[in-house]
Amino acid sequence: MQLGMIGLGRMGANIVRRIVRDGHTAVGYERHPGPIPELEAELGDKFSGTTDLAEFIGRLEVPRVVWVMIPAGATGKVIEDVAELLEPGDIIIDGGNSRYHEDIKRAKALEPKGIHYLDIGTSGGVFGLQRGYCLMIGGNKAQVDYLEPLLATIAPGYESAPRTPGRIGEPSQAEKGYLLCGPHGAGHFVKMVHNGIEYGAMGAYAEGLNILKHANAGSEYLHGEHSAEETPMEHPEYYLYDLDIPAITEVWRRGSVVASWLLDLTASALVADPDLDSYSGRVSDSGEGRWTVDAAIDTAVPVPILSAALYQRFSSRGQALYGDKMLSAMRKAFGGHNELPQK
Amino acid sequence: MQLGMIGLGRMGANIVRRIVRDGHTAVGYERHPGPIPELEAELGDKFSGTTDLAEFIGRLEVPRVVWVMIPAGATGKVIEDVAELLEPGDIIIDGGNSRYHEDIKRAKALEPKGIHYLDIGTSGGVFGLQRGYCLMIGGNKAQVDYLEPLLATIAPGYESAPRTPGRIGEPSQAEKGYLLCGPHGAGHFVKMVHNGIEYGAMGAYAEGLNILKHANAGSEYLHGEHSAEETPMEHPEYYLYDLDIPAITEVWRRGSVVASWLLDLTASALVADPDLDSYSGRVSDSGEGRWTVDAAIDTAVPVPILSAALYQRFSSRGQALYGDKMLSAMRKAFGGHNELPQK
Amino acid sequence: MQLGMIGLGRMGANIVRRIVRDGHTAVGYERHPGPIPELEAELGDKFSGTTDLAEFIGRLEVPRVVWVMIPAGATGKVIEDVAELLEPGDIIIDGGNSRYHEDIKRAKALEPKGIHYLDIGTSGGVFGLQRGYCLMIGGNKAQVDYLEPLLATIAPGYESAPRTPGRIGEPSQAEKGYLLCGPHGAGHFVKMVHNGIEYGAMGAYAEGLNILKHANAGSEYLHGEHSAEETPMEHPEYYLYDLDIPAITEVWRRGSVVASWLLDLTASALVADPDLDSYSGRVSDSGEGRWTVDAAIDTAVPVPILSAALYQRFSSRGQALYGDKMLSAMRKAFGGHNELPQK
Amino acid sequence: MQLGMIGLGRMGANIVRRIVRDGHTAVGYERHPGPIPELEAELGDKFSGTTDLAEFIGRLEVPRVVWVMIPAGATGKVIEDVAELLEPGDIIIDGGNSRYHEDIKRAKALEPKGIHYLDIGTSGGVFGLQRGYCLMIGGNKAQVDYLEPLLATIAPGYESAPRTPGRIGEPSQAEKGYLLCGPHGAGHFVKMVHNGIEYGAMGAYAEGLNILKHANAGSEYLHGEHSAEETPMEHPEYYLYDLDIPAITEVWRRGSVVASWLLDLTASALVADPDLDSYSGRVSDSGEGRWTVDAAIDTAVPVPILSAALYQRFSSRGQALYGDKMLSAMRKAFGGHNELPQK
Repeated sequence: MQLGMIGLGRMGANIVRRIVRDGHTAVGYERHPGPIPELEAELGDKFSGTTDLAEFIGRLEVPRVVWVMIPAGATGKVIEDVAELLEPGDIIIDGGNSRYHEDIKRAKALEPKGIHYLDIGTSGGVFGLQRGYCLMIGGNKAQVDYLEPLLATIAPGYESAPRTPGRIGEPSQAEKGYLLCGPHGAGHFVKMVHNGIEYGAMGAYAEGLNILKHANAGSEYLHGEHSAEETPMEHPEYYLYDLDIPAITEVWRRGSVVASWLLDLTASALVADPDLDSYSGRVSDSGEGRWTVDAAIDTAVPVPILSAALYQRFSSRGQALYGDKMLSAMRKAFGGHNELPQK
Repeated sequence: MQLGMIGLGRMGANIVRRIVRDGHTAVGYERHPGPIPELEAELGDKFSGTTDLAEFIGRLEVPRVVWVMIPAGATGKVIEDVAELLEPGDIIIDGGNSRYHEDIKRAKALEPKGIHYLDIGTSGGVFGLQRGYCLMIGGNKAQVDYLEPLLATIAPGYESAPRTPGRIGEPSQAEKGYLLCGPHGAGHFVKMVHNGIEYGAMGAYAEGLNILKHANAGSEYLHGEHSAEETPMEHPEYYLYDLDIPAITEVWRRGSVVASWLLDLTASALVADPDLDSYSGRVSDSGEGRWTVDAAIDTAVPVPILSAALYQRFSSRGQALYGDKMLSAMRKAFGGHNELPQK
Repeated sequence: MQLGMIGLGRMGANIVRRIVRDGHTAVGYERHPGPIPELEAELGDKFSGTTDLAEFIGRLEVPRVVWVMIPAGATGKVIEDVAELLEPGDIIIDGGNSRYHEDIKRAKALEPKGIHYLDIGTSGGVFGLQRGYCLMIGGNKAQVDYLEPLLATIAPGYESAPRTPGRIGEPSQAEKGYLLCGPHGAGHFVKMVHNGIEYGAMGAYAEGLNILKHANAGSEYLHGEHSAEETPMEHPEYYLYDLDIPAITEVWRRGSVVASWLLDLTASALVADPDLDSYSGRVSDSGEGRWTVDAAIDTAVPVPILSAALYQRFSSRGQALYGDKMLSAMRKAFGGHNELPQK
Repeated sequence: MQLGMIGLGRMGANIVRRIVRDGHTAVGYERHPGPIPELEAELGDKFSGTTDLAEFIGRLEVPRVVWVMIPAGATGKVIEDVAELLEPGDIIIDGGNSRYHEDIKRAKALEPKGIHYLDIGTSGGVFGLQRGYCLMIGGNKAQVDYLEPLLATIAPGYESAPRTPGRIGEPSQAEKGYLLCGPHGAGHFVKMVHNGIEYGAMGAYAEGLNILKHANAGSEYLHGEHSAEETPMEHPEYYLYDLDIPAITEVWRRGSVVASWLLDLTASALVADPDLDSYSGRVSDSGEGRWTVDAAIDTAVPVPILSAALYQRFSSRGQALYGDKMLSAMRKAFGGHNELPQK
């Protein structure tokens, strides 16, 4: 089967590699030639690239399958441009991180032209080439059925995880790593919540490991100077541990309840940089984390953990500072308390 | 009536001033003569101070009333020393910020000696001299009855707030600003929770005012440079407000639902320093905020707000940093994301 | 000066009462005659009401001043209808709880017609008639100046709170209880954040008082049966207090740091129903609490307290249930733990 | 090598099975004969059990190795009893869920007798028999070295997870699934934080899946009745998804960032009970979750996620109710709002 890929960044190029490796063919489009020659050399006659959108469309077999894999901000315009060049029966896939609201609008706009649309939330990061990509799909069953050979190739496949006890018979799509979640937008909705959970789980590890890091606070306390403004420590004798956090994340990978792929990656990052000295701790957040909380609020679902994870990222970038100054000002006003000195 | 005051810092001295002003007398003790001469000059023959604990005790009328008003860390030792010099029937008051566990232990230790003990959580801060102090008392009714003339003088009094609708008859003790909350420890328990609420309410204002501060984020966004790692802003046109926060806190003081003494103080602080430039935002926390959360956990009471307020103070002092670095490391590991640059 | 009031519910009628009491006149409109006869009888020739919108507009002096005080859902349509009947130079005020996005759109739509628009966030609740209303205004200075006599009458006035230390000279608008916060939408933006803070402060009291309520958990523990699934209590002896919460809220009203109008109301509610037996605890949330969190997320401001307060309301309505079941299911799956029995 | 096991419940019996399967021998003690005959039949001459503690000790080879695997509440007393019967050089292991404070005290108490002590936090739940147990150890290296054959057998082993990139040479202990974390208490400290993280990660899934569950809230809204006290839904058209949550957890197991053992278990639980109808959602919490937050507070580490996860469990058991009633009472007091009706 043939796939047209718009965007040959890491994700787009790796999806192309994965399908070519499995016997399919691909045509690629990028605004700048950048990655094209290398990818053509690597993949031989199964792949050709171009910087001309019309030519790209011209090389595609009918019905054309166009997967758009570019930053969310640019996706809308590109899909409009592509739609101009397509014919009824063709399929556009947004594999990026668009807000699902956009999917609903786009599918509606493309419908009168007879162009089909799928939103495919794609998880897998830099490891997708080997592991495969988890595909969360919104749209109609007819297109998913048609594209099944490609989707099955891009996804990790049934063998990639031990079967869930209780599941029987032919493996379902979900067990192969791709799933039609619902109508337009459902794929990006599920991917959005997936990322929200990711934030929460990452934050849970970060907080726990931060406690381990401070397990020697008693020792610091006993040897340090103390401001009268600081709470005295009641039991410094309980906090005299110098823990080897890289080793702890490693041991948890085996047999513990918190074993996970995120923990594997954390253990790996700690081998490379045991004290995290190469990081400053200014953490970005992507739209999905925010939209997840927005969706929760719209539907009155309490999400204290997912919110706390999002806010911690804001705070890591200094966004709480004015509020903190306000607290200092209030303490000064009612209690005459002076601020702690800068360290 | 006569009061013996151990500790002539701001709180101790102002309580002495308040009772002398109302016709009572006081004896003061301080390790260093520091404040004694000035206070003696100011209060005339109603007050005498000394740096000799035995002499201090000697000057007290029987039954002796000793109010200890010193930092929590030093209170236990001083009470032990004082108890050595007292006789059955005397009364020790801990007016400081001891953990209520201590009160329970101390009262039990003093009981065989016939010495009475009261824990009095005392709120009022630097304004207590004028406003009076809110007194939350733990112990036995007999001592509270005996001390009523002093307590009524130290407390703000019935006139200090409009009567609560529905209350009738003789004003209760609570309506005069002091209350026997329960047996030993109950005073400090109630004061502890009071401070926990204070943290939460302070944090609510701080967060809200921080949103107001960032109400021009759209304007900054439209004129700024953006990292590809940062979430693009969907509606900058909704965040173009440059708000006058000192004026807003002022208008809220009149007629709004969030009017409070804390807001009065906030408005006042903002008159003195409208942009809070004199603050760095490193906020201390006292034991009470922590003990409140401990008590909630012990009794399985969910306190997300009070905890969030406590944690924000920790974070303001850089205590989240290692966790933030861990998040950066994970993002790098699974997505190849680079950290945001330091500003 | 004359005011046209659309909506004669509690808020609208009380604003009319307040201005008539101060010598101004008013015309009222309501779809149903309901409150009109009574209000006419009460206010005499200073007020007339009608159920005919055109007649209402016809009775207004030029430039017409129309204050719309109806539920947010209906406001947009009514403003459109009114605008059809107005002339250049007339003024429409939205005094309700519209989302500030609407104000920006409406002002822009009305501008070509020469009709002025103000959004006035109005706080004061059922006590506004006596206390006055705190007015947070968005729009242009010219209209605020023109309307000053009315605004000053509706607001609580300078005398309603002691002057903030450091403020000097002529009282500002804010000190009189009304404030032009910024351009269109700024009034409702500030009111929105005000309500967000209100949620947070209410939640702080609720959590603290809930700890006080459970201060006898040790006593319950010592006399109760325990499931092996429940955490044993380490120190029941620290939780043996039966606290008088109505009295505690009363004593805090005098001299304490947490004194506030909300506390006054809480004390009052507890006089009427000391054990809160008449409440079930299903708490609604209005749009403002949600929009406040939305605005914080849009501007990357961490608001853990305001969010926690919002989520608690969601949870109080059973919205966490499915998540809770999921936790039970996980515990069963990895640890074989059975759920706690229903009480 | 020989192990003495006190407590033949699920965990204790499975550890015995695991070591016997690997060629070691075991002696078991239980107060009641219950599981002994069955285990003796199953394991043949490699295992014998008794209900007589002295006899149990008598059957052990010197130096005796006694692993205590019983509920935390009973552990202290049993260790004291055992210590009476042991000799210098013998080893006691607490493999249960004691608070690490106890370990520090116990090790100190046993030291003068020459009895060695290890605290071994043991994770693995009902799957430990097949997967092995993750062992987090506190104590001295000499005993860990001596016990290595047993520890290596109980732990999952090096093969149980793919090697972390960057790790080279001989597999470390951590890579085999057991780790000497530090001196006495360090094992239970690390296990405690492990459980804290577990709570947070579980909560992240629960919240995210709860959003998915409510993704059809728009549909409910459009077909439902609405109280004027409820916030109207702005965009019901965005919430019309009926999602298949069992399938979604299944697809996430393959290739996604949130793949984990907890997710495997969740998927499994949802196969057995797709709508979670067999659960009521009253969730217990064990000591570790609480102690983790206590430790964070003692060391001033902000843990909003871990706390939120703990509080959600409290709330699931109705512990927020009084606070919720307080919110209802306040809303009634200032705004005249009535509570939402019970559904």
